[in-house]
Amino acid sequence: MQDVSIIGVGQVPVGEHWDMGLRQLASGAVQAALQDAGIKKVDALIVGNALGGTLSAQNHLGALLADYVGMPGVEAVRVEAADASGGMALRQGYLAVAGGAVETVMVLGVEKATDRTGTERDTALASVLDADYEAGAGATPAAVAALLMRRYLYEYDLAVEQFEPFSVNAHANGSLNPNAMYRNKIRPGAFGKAPLVADPVNLFDSAPEGDGAAAVILTATERAVDMVPRVVRVRGSAAATDSLALHNRADMLFLRAVNLAAGRAYEQAGIQPSDLHVAELHDSFTVLTALQLEAAGFAARGKGWQAAADGLILREGALPISTFGGLKARGNPLGATGVYQAVEIALQLRHDAGDNQVENARLGLALNLGGIGSTAVAHVLERVE
Amino acid sequence: MQDVSIIGVGQVPVGEHWDMGLRQLASGAVQAALQDAGIKKVDALIVGNALGGTLSAQNHLGALLADYVGMPGVEAVRVEAADASGGMALRQGYLAVAGGAVETVMVLGVEKATDRTGTERDTALASVLDADYEAGAGATPAAVAALLMRRYLYEYDLAVEQFEPFSVNAHANGSLNPNAMYRNKIRPGAFGKAPLVADPVNLFDSAPEGDGAAAVILTATERAVDMVPRVVRVRGSAAATDSLALHNRADMLFLRAVNLAAGRAYEQAGIQPSDLHVAELHDSFTVLTALQLEAAGFAARGKGWQAAADGLILREGALPISTFGGLKARGNPLGATGVYQAVEIALQLRHDAGDNQVENARLGLALNLGGIGSTAVAHVLERVE
Repeated sequence: MQDVSIIGVGQVPVGEHWDMGLRQLASGAVQAALQDAGIKKVDALIVGNALGGTLSAQNHLGALLADYVGMPGVEAVRVEAADASGGMALRQGYLAVAGGAVETVMVLGVEKATDRTGTERDTALASVLDADYEAGAGATPAAVAALLMRRYLYEYDLAVEQFEPFSVNAHANGSLNPNAMYRNKIRPGAFGKAPLVADPVNLFDSAPEGDGAAAVILTATERAVDMVPRVVRVRGSAAATDSLALHNRADMLFLRAVNLAAGRAYEQAGIQPSDLHVAELHDSFTVLTALQLEAAGFAARGKGWQAAADGLILREGALPISTFGGLKARGNPLGATGVYQAVEIALQLRHDAGDNQVENARLGLALNLGGIGSTAVAHVLERVE
Repeated sequence: MQDVSIIGVGQVPVGEHWDMGLRQLASGAVQAALQDAGIKKVDALIVGNALGGTLSAQNHLGALLADYVGMPGVEAVRVEAADASGGMALRQGYLAVAGGAVETVMVLGVEKATDRTGTERDTALASVLDADYEAGAGATPAAVAALLMRRYLYEYDLAVEQFEPFSVNAHANGSLNPNAMYRNKIRPGAFGKAPLVADPVNLFDSAPEGDGAAAVILTATERAVDMVPRVVRVRGSAAATDSLALHNRADMLFLRAVNLAAGRAYEQAGIQPSDLHVAELHDSFTVLTALQLEAAGFAARGKGWQAAADGLILREGALPISTFGGLKARGNPLGATGVYQAVEIALQLRHDAGDNQVENARLGLALNLGGIGSTAVAHVLERVE
C-alpha cells in the first residue's frame, strides 16, 4: 500500500443557502480545493452525500457533479452512510489511492438540506434510522438521541446541565470561524433554559442541519511532497458499524462502531489516543460527544461528560474538539460533515487554522458518525514535517 | 496492487417479491455467496443500491444490512451511481482488496423496486436523470431513451423492428434461467406489435424493474486459489462518466462513458474486444445495447443493431450477450444489476452456467450503466486455469 496524503482542501460556509443547489455548493468546494492544491484536474471524484435523492429528487450525483464541476469523463461515484457519508467517501478515496489504481482523487462532501422543510425534511432525516422499527414508528434522530441521553442521565446520575460545556465550547470556537453556520456564543446558564427538541435534548444540545460542501484532494505522499508546501498524511483510516436500531444493541451506552473504527485507525497509525493533539468528533447531540470520548479512549465509561467539565476539550486543553465549531456551531451538512472534519483537521495540522488554531497541532483525529452511532469512520491525520 | 479474484457468488431470483424487503433480499444473496465460497465471514460489506432512500425510506443500508446478514461491527457502506450502483460497488470492493487494506470483501447489490408503484415509482426512477433539466420537465428514463432511439432510427435510417433480435435473444436465454423475472420467449414478429411505453420505445424494448439481490465475494487471487476449486480473476476494472442530460452531450449517439470505461478496462487487462468470449451489457433499452456494442469496440458506429441481426450476440455467436436473459428478461433490479452481471459472467467462466452456458468461455466483460449512459463501469473477468 502507498502512503496517502491530502494536498488540497476547500469548503463553502455551512448555512441555509436558498440561492444554491447541489451543483453550486459542490462547485464552490471543488474549485477551492483545486486552487489550494495548485492543480487543474484529478483522476476520480468520490461524492459523499446522504439525502440528495430524498431531499432534492436527485440521485446519481457522481456523474452529475463530475460534469458540472468541469471533470468530463472522470470516474465518479456517490458514497452514502447517512451522516457518515463524507467520512466514508474519504475512506473510499484513501483506498483508491493507497492501492495505486488511481493517482489523484477529489473527495467531495455535499448536502442540500434546505430543499425540503417541515415534515418532509423530518421524514428524510429519519431515513438514516431503521425504517421498519424506528422511523416507521415515528422516531427521528433527535428522538432516538433523546432516548440515549435519558438513559445516560439515569445510569450515571447526571443532569442535562452537565452537558453544557460541550455546546459552550463549540459555539465559542464557531464564533471565530467564517464558515460556521452559527457564530453566536452561548451564555453560561442559557443551555438549561433552551427550548426542548425531544426531552431531554434541547435546542442548544443538538446540531443544526445546513447546506454545505467541502472537498479534499488525495494523492500518494511520495508525489504530494513535491506538489505543495505543506502535506497532511493519512496515517490511519478505518470504519465500522453497529445496528441501526438502539434496541438491537447489547449495550446502548457503548458506541461499538466508534470503538472498533477508532481502535483500528490507532492500530494502523501506531498511536495511542493520548498522542493526539486535536480531534473533530461527531457532536450532532452532546450525549454522542460524551459517548465518543468514552468509546474512542479519551475518557472512562460514564465520564465523557466530565472531560468537558474539566476543560479537556477546550482549544488549550489536552484534546481540543469542535475547533471550528463542530456540528453544533459550524453546522451539520449531513453527508458533507465528514469532509468538513477532514478539512478542519488538515487546516489545524498545516497551522492554517487562523483564529481557530490549536497550538502546535501535529496529529489529529476525524471521527464521523452515521445515524446514532450506527456507522463510524475514523481517520488519523498527521502533519508531514 | 494485488491481483483480485471472485471466490463466491450468490443471487436470488429477480421479481416482484411482495413478501420481502431489503433485508430479506440481501440476506438471500449474501448467504448463498458465503456458502458458495465456503467461508463464514468477510472483512467488509459494500452495498450497491440505487433507490432505497426514495422507494423504501431507508438510507444507511451499509450498517443496516451488515447487522441483519450477521456481520456485526464490520466496515460497511452503500455505493450509489443509479443503475450502475452494483458495478460501482464491485469497483470499490476491487480497490479495497487490490490495495491490500481489506482482505475479503462482500459486494452486495440489492434493490427493492416494488415498495412504491405508479407515479411515486416513476418519480423515483427519474431521480437518476438530471432533476433540474430532465426529470423536472417530466422526463423519465424511458422518455429519454425514446429521444435517443428516435435519433438513432433517423440518423441511420432504421425501423424499430430492427432492434427485435436483441429482445428475442434476451428472452430466449432468460427462458432457461431459473433466476429470471420473465421466462417467456418473444415470438418472431411480436416485437413490433408491442404496446408503446414512450414512442418509439415499446414494452418488449425496455427492461422491467424488479426486486433482487446478488453478491460476489472478493479476495486476493493468491489466497483465492487455495480456497475454492474455481477462481475468477478481475483482470480489468474501470469506470467513467458522461453528463446526465442528453442535451449536454456533444454527440448523443456515442456513449462516451462506455468508451472510456471499456477502453481503460481493456488496457488494464491487456486485451482487445475481440478476445472476449462473453459479455453482459446493460440492455435496459435496446438502443442502449446497440450503442454499447459500438462504443465498446464490438461494432462500427451505426452498426450496433446489425450485430444482433447477424447473430453475433447469440449464445453460439462471436460475442454472446444477455446470456441469462439480461436486464430485459432476467430483470433490472436497478442498483443490484451490476452485481447480477458479475455473478453471471463468473458462472459462465466457471462453466457453472447450466443451460445458459457459453461453450468454453474463459474471458468475459460486465458492462453496467447508470442513467442513460451517464455512468459506465466495465469489468473484465477471467477464468483462472
